[in-house]
Amino acid sequence: MSMWRQDPVAYSRSQRKRFVGELRDFIRFASVSAQPRHAADIRRCADWLADHLRGLGLEAVRVIPTAGHPVVYADWRRAFGRATLLIYGHYDVQPADPLDAWISPPFEPTVRGENLHGRGASDDKGQLFTHVKAVESHLRAAGRLPVNIKCLFEGEEEIGSPNLPAFLDRHRNALAADIAVLSDTRMLAPDRPAITESLRGALSVELEIRGADEDLHSGNFGGAIHNPLQALCEILASLHDAGGRVNIPGFYDRVQQWSEQHRAYMRRVGPSDAKILADASARQGWGEAGHTLYERTTIRPALTINGVTGGYQGPGVKAVIPARASAKLNFRLVPDQDPLEIDHLFRAHVSRIVPATVRARLQTHLAASPAVIDRRHPGILAAASAYSRGFGIMPSYLRSGGTIPVVGLLQEKLGIPTVLMGFALPDDRLHAPNEKFHLPTFFRGIATSIAFLEEAAKIRPAASASTRWQSAVAPRPRFEVSA
Amino acid sequence: MSMWRQDPVAYSRSQRKRFVGELRDFIRFASVSAQPRHAADIRRCADWLADHLRGLGLEAVRVIPTAGHPVVYADWRRAFGRATLLIYGHYDVQPADPLDAWISPPFEPTVRGENLHGRGASDDKGQLFTHVKAVESHLRAAGRLPVNIKCLFEGEEEIGSPNLPAFLDRHRNALAADIAVLSDTRMLAPDRPAITESLRGALSVELEIRGADEDLHSGNFGGAIHNPLQALCEILASLHDAGGRVNIPGFYDRVQQWSEQHRAYMRRVGPSDAKILADASARQGWGEAGHTLYERTTIRPALTINGVTGGYQGPGVKAVIPARASAKLNFRLVPDQDPLEIDHLFRAHVSRIVPATVRARLQTHLAASPAVIDRRHPGILAAASAYSRGFGIMPSYLRSGGTIPVVGLLQEKLGIPTVLMGFALPDDRLHAPNEKFHLPTFFRGIATSIAFLEEAAKIRPAASASTRWQSAVAPRPRFEVSA
Repeated sequence: MSMWRQDPVAYSRSQRKRFVGELRDFIRFASVSAQPRHAADIRRCADWLADHLRGLGLEAVRVIPTAGHPVVYADWRRAFGRATLLIYGHYDVQPADPLDAWISPPFEPTVRGENLHGRGASDDKGQLFTHVKAVESHLRAAGRLPVNIKCLFEGEEEIGSPNLPAFLDRHRNALAADIAVLSDTRMLAPDRPAITESLRGALSVELEIRGADEDLHSGNFGGAIHNPLQALCEILASLHDAGGRVNIPGFYDRVQQWSEQHRAYMRRVGPSDAKILADASARQGWGEAGHTLYERTTIRPALTINGVTGGYQGPGVKAVIPARASAKLNFRLVPDQDPLEIDHLFRAHVSRIVPATVRARLQTHLAASPAVIDRRHPGILAAASAYSRGFGIMPSYLRSGGTIPVVGLLQEKLGIPTVLMGFALPDDRLHAPNEKFHLPTFFRGIATSIAFLEEAAKIRPAASASTRWQSAVAPRPRFEVSA
Repeated sequence: MSMWRQDPVAYSRSQRKRFVGELRDFIRFASVSAQPRHAADIRRCADWLADHLRGLGLEAVRVIPTAGHPVVYADWRRAFGRATLLIYGHYDVQPADPLDAWISPPFEPTVRGENLHGRGASDDKGQLFTHVKAVESHLRAAGRLPVNIKCLFEGEEEIGSPNLPAFLDRHRNALAADIAVLSDTRMLAPDRPAITESLRGALSVELEIRGADEDLHSGNFGGAIHNPLQALCEILASLHDAGGRVNIPGFYDRVQQWSEQHRAYMRRVGPSDAKILADASARQGWGEAGHTLYERTTIRPALTINGVTGGYQGPGVKAVIPARASAKLNFRLVPDQDPLEIDHLFRAHVSRIVPATVRARLQTHLAASPAVIDRRHPGILAAASAYSRGFGIMPSYLRSGGTIPVVGLLQEKLGIPTVLMGFALPDDRLHAPNEKFHLPTFFRGIATSIAFLEEAAKIRPAASASTRWQSAVAPRPRFEVSA
């Protein structure tokens, strides 16, 4: 710990070269959560991150096993009487394939121009590291943090955080906080910071249709036996009406209508139809009439068929009536839709419409609630103020069509809202080859996070959060190790 | 060649064990014509078959390259003044997947009870081999055949015989015959032999739907971009009306209506709805109202989706709007539908109904005409008589829902009808896992084929066939080798 006090932002500026070097070390771990062959890389990455946090002076640092990949935890809780900020991030990354589309190898982080290229450079290692380096800057420059923090860095975000709900349940007292911050969302441009004020929820289900016990010859039986593939297509086709609306009774019942004022703000600030089509390299829009493409992807729910499989898919022909066929479906939900209620509505609907000639089986893969945070929330005000200090401009408020399950989980399990202050740029190529992180944005992000730690210190600790904290038996969180 | 004369049937009975062993050797070749990785297996299988025929004393044996897989040819033409019989069969087989559904491996032929299990055991290696062993029995027991034969064993039947038309064009003089026989059809039961008097035609097409240039994130874009998978499902679902009829304008225009007398015979002799459902291990029928299941699969056309592929098909979830999706479609056609006309109607229909938000691409994989043969034809009478000798009972006349493109081709290119004397049983699981051949039927089939060679000798050689034969410059067929 430094013996003198310095400006944290000035400190961070003096350390740029080292910060980039450390971020490159972080990216070098191929911490791909979806691919079992990278389990050891995940583990090494978690250990490296924990060591790094320990080196900064954070406390209670530990790598906590889960049923899947471990969680890295650290805290600093010496700002007595101040609020507690939960910093969430994820150190796992998407698979890097197709490898041959990368200009430099995904796990050999390379600086080209103003950008650092590598898998996870932006999503989410770079953005997670932005906060880590802000914390370091305070600790090194001022010897202390202005606010209490708890770091929760997950290793399974890219596979849907399967073990996080149980983890939050198990450690809800230890993780008690007033507010969470998460940087895994987008800005509008390098000089246009943004706070994401809403996320869609998600419900992913798999629908399997079964017909005969075995594949049949389509010459011998074609015309007399209902083909599960055809029944599946008929069901899938029926799930939208001609106007692009989801055709499941009750689906829209809880969809919140936004005021004309909100919609006007969205039209003014958000991407135009032309911009969205260009981003999608698509020629034409589609979907619910009466809504812009931005609205259709953010404040309106959607149903997407992510995949269909059935029958023969090899080269040439095979005259088969398959015994089964299945589809992966992904709902995106908006307030106040409840993923479990939608799951129930969908199951009831499928059981009503499935023809008697086949059988349907449904499997729910994941359910995540939509999230929205009010612009007047003290956490949002703190973030807005931090952005104006870090970027010299007030942020815009964006709505995202994506889903970050942890946001709903933190609300549900810990009762806290999450401030989404993203540092990704629209061209960061998240999940795609040649992912990159914009280094000037990294440094402005650190300055913003430094400011946010100070602004968050002004948030009044909620009685409930404080109660839960004080009621914990041990002053340090005690984690039970799950197998 | 044997020095003494013996009854060919008695000879065949004495060789049962060896015959089964040789058939197992034949099945061991994974001669899957649809899968390029099996090209060498196909070639080895053809070589084995040619060697086998040579060993029996057949003449002019050769493996003739085509643009695809080779044809195996052999003949015996010393029955001067007698008719010439073209024995057609195919040594290629369907793909074996799904592999994990097989009780014993598909290319390790295994006897269980009265059945020999393996891919191609019935379709068509076992049935082809029935004639080969009948020919052997005559040659070994009597030192000669009662009729002239030409064997044409193809390696591309399961992929629609793409190179057979050109082959037949090129070698039409060398292949001149009075009649063809083909065993690739079904009996009604082990004690109920059948002659197939009609086949459906086939048209196989692949429909690809393309959307955006690249896969998109279904969170970011779901609801605003038309999903090619959804557009595909909508198109596929629209291809049948609620009554199970094919919903393509003009599709039924040329469908022949059969007399009540014909339909009554079909009801009396053909499989009942219950039998067809049991064979399909299905609980319920489906399809065109006003027709029995047997009619729906034989004298009525059908459209089957053989396969659909698109988007993510691995474990778990991937939030993707795929850039493309495709379906393999198989029409079964009846007299007087013309596959090329149906192809044209379908293309015109798709281009009318494809939404402007996506693009469609159609590829035609195969087109084969429906075929029908009159019960009063001398070849049919010879076959009926042979069945009554081999099985002790007159055969029934069946209509098949399947397609054997060569039947239409032999009619068109060589001007000869094909007698379809099948030895497959309804539960042989053709094209499916655990395909098998019933060994007692194999031996009765050999006795029947032995009798058929004798009965066919009574057919008067047609002037035209004879003319073409005699006009051939060389006494042996001369094959041009195509690259």
